[in-house]
Amino acid sequence: MSAEFQTFFEDLVQGETHKFGQYEVKRDEVIDFARAYDPHEFHLSDEAAANSHFGRLSASGWHTCAMTMRMMVDQMHEKGLASMGGAGVDELRWMAPVYPGDVLRVESELLEKRRSRSRPEMGLIRRRNTVFNQENRAVMSFLVTGMIALRDPSAPFED
Amino acid sequence: MSAEFQTFFEDLVQGETHKFGQYEVKRDEVIDFARAYDPHEFHLSDEAAANSHFGRLSASGWHTCAMTMRMMVDQMHEKGLASMGGAGVDELRWMAPVYPGDVLRVESELLEKRRSRSRPEMGLIRRRNTVFNQENRAVMSFLVTGMIALRDPSAPFED
Repeated sequence: MSAEFQTFFEDLVQGETHKFGQYEVKRDEVIDFARAYDPHEFHLSDEAAANSHFGRLSASGWHTCAMTMRMMVDQMHEKGLASMGGAGVDELRWMAPVYPGDVLRVESELLEKRRSRSRPEMGLIRRRNTVFNQENRAVMSFLVTGMIALRDPSAPFED
Repeated sequence: MSAEFQTFFEDLVQGETHKFGQYEVKRDEVIDFARAYDPHEFHLSDEAAANSHFGRLSASGWHTCAMTMRMMVDQMHEKGLASMGGAGVDELRWMAPVYPGDVLRVESELLEKRRSRSRPEMGLIRRRNTVFNQENRAVMSFLVTGMIALRDPSAPFED
């Protein structure tokens, strides 16, 4: 385990909510992402967007996922979290459009933590991440399951 | 409704599976995406990747989502699908690493379709999308809920 890690599975507290991130959504980035990965006309052109239910140019929902991941990884690095990767995502919902000029942030609640029986060197955590814009409107939410290394893999199981 | 649309809600057949896409995963693209959105060292450097459980440099799971969306949008455009956007994703699972040099494709099964009662001009569909690599190994799967316009919004409800 790398010496850079400071926060391990044992340090995570079920029920705690962390707030982090400040991601300014840039118009060029919205268009570049859409051109590469989600080339619907309403993500590329103001005119097409005006005629869509979004009303004006908005980010691909997958771009919002990517921007959120960036905020999550920056937070993991800041905390020195011993993350071993993500296993999956559930209940991903796009609740409101994300527009160029918006500033996004994340609230992350730790819903559940449990040690892995098959891999005692790690634990599984489940978080609900909600992404808000600068008006404190929730624009996206999802549940994520992550794998976190233990500081002391030899510790006995508690149950 | 744009004249470019050819495939409407009425045309979609529950239970059908469509196979499409051929996305070659490029090393530069993997690194560029990771640098912007998922800057874990194991997505950026061969050395860090060799010491991770991925074994070698692999794509961010969110990059795999983005590449898959590109295949989906290309397919929608080819079919002239009257898509009104996605509502959400469930059971997103990353099942195997995606490496530079892999060639991805999608199998999409239409699990369910129903008209919206609150918005009779559209229907809701639910698909299971599974992404395979060139060795026919499933690397990712998810359920997606989409909104599709009706050709004839004035048609009476069947039930």
